[in-house]
Amino acid sequence: MLRVFTDGCEQDRLSVGDRGLHYGDGLFETILIRDGMPCLWNRHLARLALGADRLGLAQPSRSILREEAARICAGLDDGLLKLIVTRGVGGRGYRPPASPHPRRILLSYASSPSPDPSAQGGVVIRYCATPASVNRRLAGIKHLNRLDAVLARQEWDDPQIAEGLMCDDAGDVVGGTMTNLFVWDGVALATPAVTRSGLAGTVRSVALESAARAGIACVERPITRRMIEESVGLFLTNARIGVWPVVRLEEQSFDPERLPVDLLHQIRQAAQTPEWPDP
Amino acid sequence: MLRVFTDGCEQDRLSVGDRGLHYGDGLFETILIRDGMPCLWNRHLARLALGADRLGLAQPSRSILREEAARICAGLDDGLLKLIVTRGVGGRGYRPPASPHPRRILLSYASSPSPDPSAQGGVVIRYCATPASVNRRLAGIKHLNRLDAVLARQEWDDPQIAEGLMCDDAGDVVGGTMTNLFVWDGVALATPAVTRSGLAGTVRSVALESAARAGIACVERPITRRMIEESVGLFLTNARIGVWPVVRLEEQSFDPERLPVDLLHQIRQAAQTPEWPDP
Repeated sequence: MLRVFTDGCEQDRLSVGDRGLHYGDGLFETILIRDGMPCLWNRHLARLALGADRLGLAQPSRSILREEAARICAGLDDGLLKLIVTRGVGGRGYRPPASPHPRRILLSYASSPSPDPSAQGGVVIRYCATPASVNRRLAGIKHLNRLDAVLARQEWDDPQIAEGLMCDDAGDVVGGTMTNLFVWDGVALATPAVTRSGLAGTVRSVALESAARAGIACVERPITRRMIEESVGLFLTNARIGVWPVVRLEEQSFDPERLPVDLLHQIRQAAQTPEWPDP
Repeated sequence: MLRVFTDGCEQDRLSVGDRGLHYGDGLFETILIRDGMPCLWNRHLARLALGADRLGLAQPSRSILREEAARICAGLDDGLLKLIVTRGVGGRGYRPPASPHPRRILLSYASSPSPDPSAQGGVVIRYCATPASVNRRLAGIKHLNRLDAVLARQEWDDPQIAEGLMCDDAGDVVGGTMTNLFVWDGVALATPAVTRSGLAGTVRSVALESAARAGIACVERPITRRMIEESVGLFLTNARIGVWPVVRLEEQSFDPERLPVDLLHQIRQAAQTPEWPDP
């Protein structure tokens, strides 16, 4: 953690009464910083707004978030901005207070030193035994209830394994612990629907739009392990990594050259392009 | 909040880097205080141990917890003790640190002034539209991922409605937002299994044992709305309320006199009996 703003002040401590701690009652965004500016700012804010709407939470003012993001990004060429919004303190038990005072926390981190795996062809991944939580009201949004991903990520220590895929209780593949999954059959793409479980990633939405522009079909649907076994290639996306081609999943090897490489390049570029948020 | 101990010190602020906030990576217990002593202490500690085992988290020392609980209960005749254990600060992303420093937070609250509803015959309850989250690895334990209960509790404002029942994605009834449910068919009891969803309440375990001692069958199983429609009576349990007979669920009325009242009395007594924790 490099810097922290809590409700606009340099403050790295929080009330132990905060509902973010008690119930995970809040949302977050992890935003890539390049050249002192956030990437995909408007997409992150749009997802935050969707989450706030789902939780019945007033979203913090976009202009305040923009000002604080600019302040925390200044002087940090490359890194990450984590934005947390909680419902704040109050309420008796699970019931939210009638007039909550949401709390916003912005944290900046230095870039992780991990090398670009696409330079080495791609990443090795595995399946996790921990199931992804299923709840249609919580699917898609980036809320603070992330124990399923924590337990899944705890399943391996091997630094050669970059990510683990999680399945729901029906056995369908939901995505990685921290990434969205795309499956390429040689002609078209498919990605897990995020209506029961999973998360609608910002780079996932970039990928969906880029594919549409490139005339490549990409369908959001349930993804079975069988579909993956029969696929030509896989790639993973998130805001921090951009795009990771997969070279191996358990015993199955993939040739990343057979992926739609121009499309992956476009997605990667878009995900890593800094933009000042709309004023 | 009356008093707060964080890792043994009077400290009501927490690092914003704590994993309890970021991911809900932790556990809690809500413990009734009577005559300056906790009730069902050993059951609460046993569930905490089960949860810590599930999360791969070292449980805080029982003797330290006992000492701090005694300290916070002293001078508080009646009230609540909330005990939170998080995985503390650290780790990159979802991955827990190799050697976490769990944090323990004890908070005391004055007793809520709500009257005993059994004095008025029982409580009025409803169904919630928010589904209960499904994850077999997280079912049963009292972790900090409670957004499903928060959203369900947000569905009603009417102070006449004491609780809402939640169903899982299959439509089976999991329990109340903050209570366990028991269904009485006139001969035997049933309560939702907590293997896919829901929470293994401390008073639920008291009820299961009390029923066994009284020679009343009580089965843990999936509970359908149909079973509830055909039931003779319902009651709810948790550590704070003890036992609540139900007089009405939506349009269905119940006569609490038809419940096994001696059993309910035994459960209520056991739930509200202060005990010093084993040294």
